[in-house]
Amino acid sequence: MNSATAVSPANIAFIKFWGKTDSNQNIPYNDSMSMNLSGCLTTTTVEFDPRLDDDRIVINKFEASGSGKQRVVRILDIVRREAGMGLKAKVESANNFPTASGIASSAAAFSALAMAASTAAGLTLSKRELSRLARLGSGSACRSIFDGFVYWKGGKDDRTSYAYQLAPVTHWDLWDIVAVVAKESKKASSTQGHSVATSSPYFRQRQRGLPLRIKQMKEAMLKKDFPKFGRLLEEEAVDLHVMAMTSRPPIFYWNSGTMEVMKKIREWREEGKEAYFTMDAGANVHVICRAKDEAEINQRLGRIAGIESTIVNKPGRGTWLI
Amino acid sequence: MNSATAVSPANIAFIKFWGKTDSNQNIPYNDSMSMNLSGCLTTTTVEFDPRLDDDRIVINKFEASGSGKQRVVRILDIVRREAGMGLKAKVESANNFPTASGIASSAAAFSALAMAASTAAGLTLSKRELSRLARLGSGSACRSIFDGFVYWKGGKDDRTSYAYQLAPVTHWDLWDIVAVVAKESKKASSTQGHSVATSSPYFRQRQRGLPLRIKQMKEAMLKKDFPKFGRLLEEEAVDLHVMAMTSRPPIFYWNSGTMEVMKKIREWREEGKEAYFTMDAGANVHVICRAKDEAEINQRLGRIAGIESTIVNKPGRGTWLI
Repeated sequence: MNSATAVSPANIAFIKFWGKTDSNQNIPYNDSMSMNLSGCLTTTTVEFDPRLDDDRIVINKFEASGSGKQRVVRILDIVRREAGMGLKAKVESANNFPTASGIASSAAAFSALAMAASTAAGLTLSKRELSRLARLGSGSACRSIFDGFVYWKGGKDDRTSYAYQLAPVTHWDLWDIVAVVAKESKKASSTQGHSVATSSPYFRQRQRGLPLRIKQMKEAMLKKDFPKFGRLLEEEAVDLHVMAMTSRPPIFYWNSGTMEVMKKIREWREEGKEAYFTMDAGANVHVICRAKDEAEINQRLGRIAGIESTIVNKPGRGTWLI
Repeated sequence: MNSATAVSPANIAFIKFWGKTDSNQNIPYNDSMSMNLSGCLTTTTVEFDPRLDDDRIVINKFEASGSGKQRVVRILDIVRREAGMGLKAKVESANNFPTASGIASSAAAFSALAMAASTAAGLTLSKRELSRLARLGSGSACRSIFDGFVYWKGGKDDRTSYAYQLAPVTHWDLWDIVAVVAKESKKASSTQGHSVATSSPYFRQRQRGLPLRIKQMKEAMLKKDFPKFGRLLEEEAVDLHVMAMTSRPPIFYWNSGTMEVMKKIREWREEGKEAYFTMDAGANVHVICRAKDEAEINQRLGRIAGIESTIVNKPGRGTWLI
């Protein structure tokens, strides 16, 4: 048994990961918070095979090469070293949602990879160890390992930077309707964004303000205070894009569809239909609402011209083996 | 002769006026820079008339009342006091461009009013005095008094806060094509925006950075270094909206059309067609280009679905009497 298959969710950050103190180990400037997305999944199979001369990485049916392949091989190498073996692997990975468009596809991918590769190699890692391993592939992947609502303690090095669960899937009936306004890959990757994050004249001030916002959001989340949670959520979402738009060179992720959805959500709130927006580093809008309003809001989103499709998510479980 | 008619241009701010140290006298936190717009004009007639019991203010054919009227009456009162007379006035004012939609209609209106009212009252004010009088009606109106490219020295009180000319109309063949993406009045007035400006956590950092940006932009403008000028122009435009979106409560002026035009302009630059964007506190985009590219860019703008119309402007002369 040199093979394992893992499924893992993307996650939506309520508090964003933006800027790294160590870009090799993916150590963030700040702690972050997220919810796993039940409907945005990556399935990854890793098989170590003595017949292979080289690692083969197939992502969404395409053979990866270059830096895309190297990011995966790095994780395989760590697993091989840990397991004391040298077999090459075939990795097959597929998303059920559009890649590189503001849905954290790399989070789902590297958390699934961490679990599938370590299991296939015969390792038994704790969830914290899995979280750290996933983080080395893509920072926010460390948050996808745990069920439900998750906190990433940024830490200061590889040992101290890992995620843990804040609340289980059943804690709060928050739904995330992803309004897909851009299926194409975005122009600037998150990696590029991170690399220029500190060039924003506002980055330091953001860091100063974050501990209070994190504390307040954690409280609002645990108390299920939706209006307070939503206000902080939108402030943080705008803040991420403020950092991007004021970095040198500036990065613009929003498009016309993004603006339209943001505007509608504010209008709907004025009418008493409560939903809030957030976005990761991309154009798609994550519309956060209560379960009771999901059908109505999804229907309204469907009537907005710029929206290509929606993906409805409940709080999702973390990475699992199948 | 108790009557006078003045025509005055709107202006587009290259460095923005955002936040007031004195909201009664309209003293700004920072200096600003602008160009007058040849195609966005207000024509205002003031007639002091012994038969009137009260001031009558007619703006775009509608009789003004309440706070809109009060802002005009305040200027008339200053003029009457200065001229030592007490006659009531009829004021008739009309724009040739949409009101309150990101084109600085109040700048054109109050500069025209300052000149028409003071002339009708028999006063002979210097341009600096006119600039200060216009400023009391609407801050940025002080910049519309002078021909071409204008600088507003923010100052610290009524006496020291006034505009002056940086360069004449003929200095540079910069054109401003206003892409009108929103003809409706905006939800938050500039006045509201100013009142919450300092609540942005980034306002102080903006103030710290402005002197260098202003210095660089003034240099780029005087040397006609378009790429450098354009980069600074866009940074400043984004900065204004960053302040608005991060104030408490946040203000969002951009709409889907705004985003679409910004994106196109960046794409056109990549193709070698050089234009830059800026916006005031509104959704409309001011597309700044060289005279030689105006026809092509205006045509391209016309093909963008979200654009209702365009207004083509050269550097405009300041307020004049007709």
